[in-house]
Amino acid sequence: MKRFDVENLRRFIIEVFEKMGCSPQDSLQAADILVRAELRGISSHGAMRLVEYVNLFKNKRVNVKPDIEVVNQTAGTALIDGGKGFGLIVAPKAMKLAIDKAKDVGTGWVSVRNSYHFGIAGYFAMMALEHDMIGIAMTNANPLVAPTYSMGPLLGTNPIAVAVPAGEEPSYVADFATAPIARGKLDQKYASGLQAPEGLLQDENGNPVTDPDILSKGGAIKTLGGDEEHGGHKGYCLTSIVDILSAVLPGANFGPLVVPTLGYLATDKATEDKGIGHFFGAIRIDAFQTAEEFKDYMDLWIRTFRNATPVEGQEAVLIPGDIERISELEKIKEGISLPDNVVKKLMSIAVELKISSRILE
Amino acid sequence: MKRFDVENLRRFIIEVFEKMGCSPQDSLQAADILVRAELRGISSHGAMRLVEYVNLFKNKRVNVKPDIEVVNQTAGTALIDGGKGFGLIVAPKAMKLAIDKAKDVGTGWVSVRNSYHFGIAGYFAMMALEHDMIGIAMTNANPLVAPTYSMGPLLGTNPIAVAVPAGEEPSYVADFATAPIARGKLDQKYASGLQAPEGLLQDENGNPVTDPDILSKGGAIKTLGGDEEHGGHKGYCLTSIVDILSAVLPGANFGPLVVPTLGYLATDKATEDKGIGHFFGAIRIDAFQTAEEFKDYMDLWIRTFRNATPVEGQEAVLIPGDIERISELEKIKEGISLPDNVVKKLMSIAVELKISSRILE
Repeated sequence: MKRFDVENLRRFIIEVFEKMGCSPQDSLQAADILVRAELRGISSHGAMRLVEYVNLFKNKRVNVKPDIEVVNQTAGTALIDGGKGFGLIVAPKAMKLAIDKAKDVGTGWVSVRNSYHFGIAGYFAMMALEHDMIGIAMTNANPLVAPTYSMGPLLGTNPIAVAVPAGEEPSYVADFATAPIARGKLDQKYASGLQAPEGLLQDENGNPVTDPDILSKGGAIKTLGGDEEHGGHKGYCLTSIVDILSAVLPGANFGPLVVPTLGYLATDKATEDKGIGHFFGAIRIDAFQTAEEFKDYMDLWIRTFRNATPVEGQEAVLIPGDIERISELEKIKEGISLPDNVVKKLMSIAVELKISSRILE
Repeated sequence: MKRFDVENLRRFIIEVFEKMGCSPQDSLQAADILVRAELRGISSHGAMRLVEYVNLFKNKRVNVKPDIEVVNQTAGTALIDGGKGFGLIVAPKAMKLAIDKAKDVGTGWVSVRNSYHFGIAGYFAMMALEHDMIGIAMTNANPLVAPTYSMGPLLGTNPIAVAVPAGEEPSYVADFATAPIARGKLDQKYASGLQAPEGLLQDENGNPVTDPDILSKGGAIKTLGGDEEHGGHKGYCLTSIVDILSAVLPGANFGPLVVPTLGYLATDKATEDKGIGHFFGAIRIDAFQTAEEFKDYMDLWIRTFRNATPVEGQEAVLIPGDIERISELEKIKEGISLPDNVVKKLMSIAVELKISSRILE
């Protein structure tokens, strides 16, 4: 592990995007999302993802100065073509448009095609908070999840984030992959020689396994809930809804047609790359109740849940976003620690893009 | 089991609502939702629920001729006060308003307070289909679900329904409780002397159990995913999002403050009854792509998933809504079968409300 000053790490990431050819403003935006992921303790979506972004650049799949176009719009909606830009650059613009539309007609909803991995969904949902709006963000992703009864993976781990403003209490921020376990967590278990929990994985024949490396061998993550008896078909509904809203609605690549960014997933060369898709929503609180009424009531919701009796061995019932908020407060003060293998990868990116690696040393 | 002609059963249910004092039009609407649930094979939300509705009436908790009021609205949103009417009467009006607003500004979103159990969420989501819109419906409910780390139940089984129009393929209709197992299924297991699957239930001390009658003894259903290791905290996020959108946003009773309709749940007499709440959305397809483009692409989505290789022992990967659609086609022809204990309950309702029980005999 190596600890970095937040602003030094941010400057390094900005330079990576600038060296690929992104504008200074876009590079700043992209770095802000990745640093925010590190601060919030979601390191699977932080600095380590630079490798994937640089690969997209090297493989000429991404347009570093994308022509981001509003293809179609109404007073409350828009369809955006991301011009094959980094999701980190396309997504904030789309969310901003959703917020602007909500100011006019109560809610705004923007779907996006021809984009790529956008980082943590929570970043975009949280953009709504300062406007006294509920923010919603979702995206589809590399196919790794097998629907109920399916032998192979057809869906992404398709995250959803919902941010809800409160009054005296900190905001409610749910930000979760709709699959029961993240790919990053499986990688961690594999690296530590541990098995995955029972009931979450299947091999290439659909048989239950606990091998955390099964995704690279044609296996799949089961849907949230696991098998049908444990409600896995509800998880299939949830993950497929995200795929439909994020990809079918805007005309991006859906489910198994997503052109993967993971080496071990096969690409059907015949598939046209329309990128992955996102779906963003902003709901203006005072279109329903006054912001004050709502925030008071949301405070009551948060306190009711936080003060509920926990099971033995746990201190309290948590509110979605608690862990990430505490992480953020700590890391702003103490800096961001990155594992040695991630630092090593950043080093080779620095060499490749001819960036000073001084802050990494 | 006793089989009923669909129209005879519908007429009986209409009469139940009329005898309680509902208008002929509202009674027709309420009966249509319950009959539709029976046709779609969701009998837990069909005729057997009349007992609960009649109880709400007898306990003077429901207003049979509610003053349904639009409290606040913008071009794309509305907050409706259901006037303590049956959800079966309030909800269709709210969904219709969402659809009307979507015609104007691309999407419409309506939240509802002071309402009660609205039947199957899918009914309302499906109202959007004939308008070439995606329909969304959700509601909160009696607290039976324990959030991650919580000793007791704080959330309802809070269903979500999403209906998506297709072209040549039948529509996609996901309609699912966000809890891993429905209360009705636990009742069935209890009646048959069976245990619930491992990992779904906890007793009043938060310990894992398989006793299907545990809810009546202070126990709870775990969130979708089960424990944290299996992603249960994601299920907590999902179910709490439904609670916030359905109840906090409109100002209905949320989570543990829902005044229960189940005898074995304790009511805090101090809690003001603002009913349960719902949230409805309608998304106009052609605000994004043309309806034709979208439906062609949705057909491709459906065929891709339906034609995916199933695991051994299963015929095919199902599309959400398949089972319910097939049930509906069969039962329209063959009639609706009700178990003897449900028929007996309908009999006593007939006696109580002085309705002819001829069709039940």
